[in-house]
Amino acid sequence: MASVDFWFELASTYSYPAAMRIDGVAAAYGVSVRWRPFLLGPIFKSQGWDTSPFKVYPAKGRYMWRDMERLCQHYDLPFAVPGDMAGFPRHSVLAARVALVGLEAGWGRDFVKSACTAQFAQQADIADRSLLKTLVEPLVDDPEAVLAAATSPDIKTQLRMNTEEAVQRGLFGAPSFTVGDELFWGNDRLETAFDWASKGF
Amino acid sequence: MASVDFWFELASTYSYPAAMRIDGVAAAYGVSVRWRPFLLGPIFKSQGWDTSPFKVYPAKGRYMWRDMERLCQHYDLPFAVPGDMAGFPRHSVLAARVALVGLEAGWGRDFVKSACTAQFAQQADIADRSLLKTLVEPLVDDPEAVLAAATSPDIKTQLRMNTEEAVQRGLFGAPSFTVGDELFWGNDRLETAFDWASKGF
Repeated sequence: MASVDFWFELASTYSYPAAMRIDGVAAAYGVSVRWRPFLLGPIFKSQGWDTSPFKVYPAKGRYMWRDMERLCQHYDLPFAVPGDMAGFPRHSVLAARVALVGLEAGWGRDFVKSACTAQFAQQADIADRSLLKTLVEPLVDDPEAVLAAATSPDIKTQLRMNTEEAVQRGLFGAPSFTVGDELFWGNDRLETAFDWASKGF
Repeated sequence: MASVDFWFELASTYSYPAAMRIDGVAAAYGVSVRWRPFLLGPIFKSQGWDTSPFKVYPAKGRYMWRDMERLCQHYDLPFAVPGDMAGFPRHSVLAARVALVGLEAGWGRDFVKSACTAQFAQQADIADRSLLKTLVEPLVDDPEAVLAAATSPDIKTQLRMNTEEAVQRGLFGAPSFTVGDELFWGNDRLETAFDWASKGF
């Protein structure tokens, strides 16, 4: 079965609609998906940015919030434009580690979707451990064990290795999609990636 | 009749497919288009870049050429990936001024399409005055008069004013589309802009 790797960053605005849509698109194309959380922070740092390009370049940031608002309306996804940029981008390391624990255990996709929704529809802070625990509660028997596992050396290494592989594959933003060596960047290229994979290039 | 302003930069890769497609899309939506050449150089400078972001950020540049290659294949447009980035981006000031002369006279759209095609399908240098003359020749009686008009104070002022208006409207890249105060960025948003305009928002 053809497969797409879905590279997402939990603090990334456009990763939100991609995460909410991808399973439906994958089913429509008959293509499987491997969810790959990674961190944009180290990639941005290597480009000389100490925060999101949407903060470094204010005109781009203003556009992005309006574009996201229109996009989410189009996709019928809840979305709340933050009143200011103070809380953006959120620190996503712990949430990404929880996602990795969940992706191994089978509830990771549901967690990512609920974390994205909490962040972008309710302006919740995904750096907040107690929020993450609340999001995990409906999905597992022992939320505290999940949060403990999220800071284990194995999970930390997995996230670091995902990020290193992302750099090696030429990723520079999120979401991105890879099909073999072929790279597709942005929520706008989600369908293109699945089309590519389904044609077996 | 609803209308879309089409903001393009002649040196911009993604402005090429947008220029080639826009009249067809506009006709399909029953919406008119106003072609607005502007310069990205001053906008990039104000963001701290002395050249295209595709050169400032090499991973983004590598991706862009591959993405353009796939896009042009999809749209059935000729495209040649340059062997190196040495000639990119081209100096587009004179070509943009010729476009303004042509847009007033009625042959501007044809000129822009042929200049983009020469640049991105044949790697021609649109900074070359003799190339521009060759491109204008099939469109007008007196190509030399056109090139003289292109450096007139009136045309220089028009291009500067377009660029200033682009900044005021929040543009940060090309192509962009505006419908009233609504901004859409990128060839990927071309249809969205016309959809927006046709619905009369």
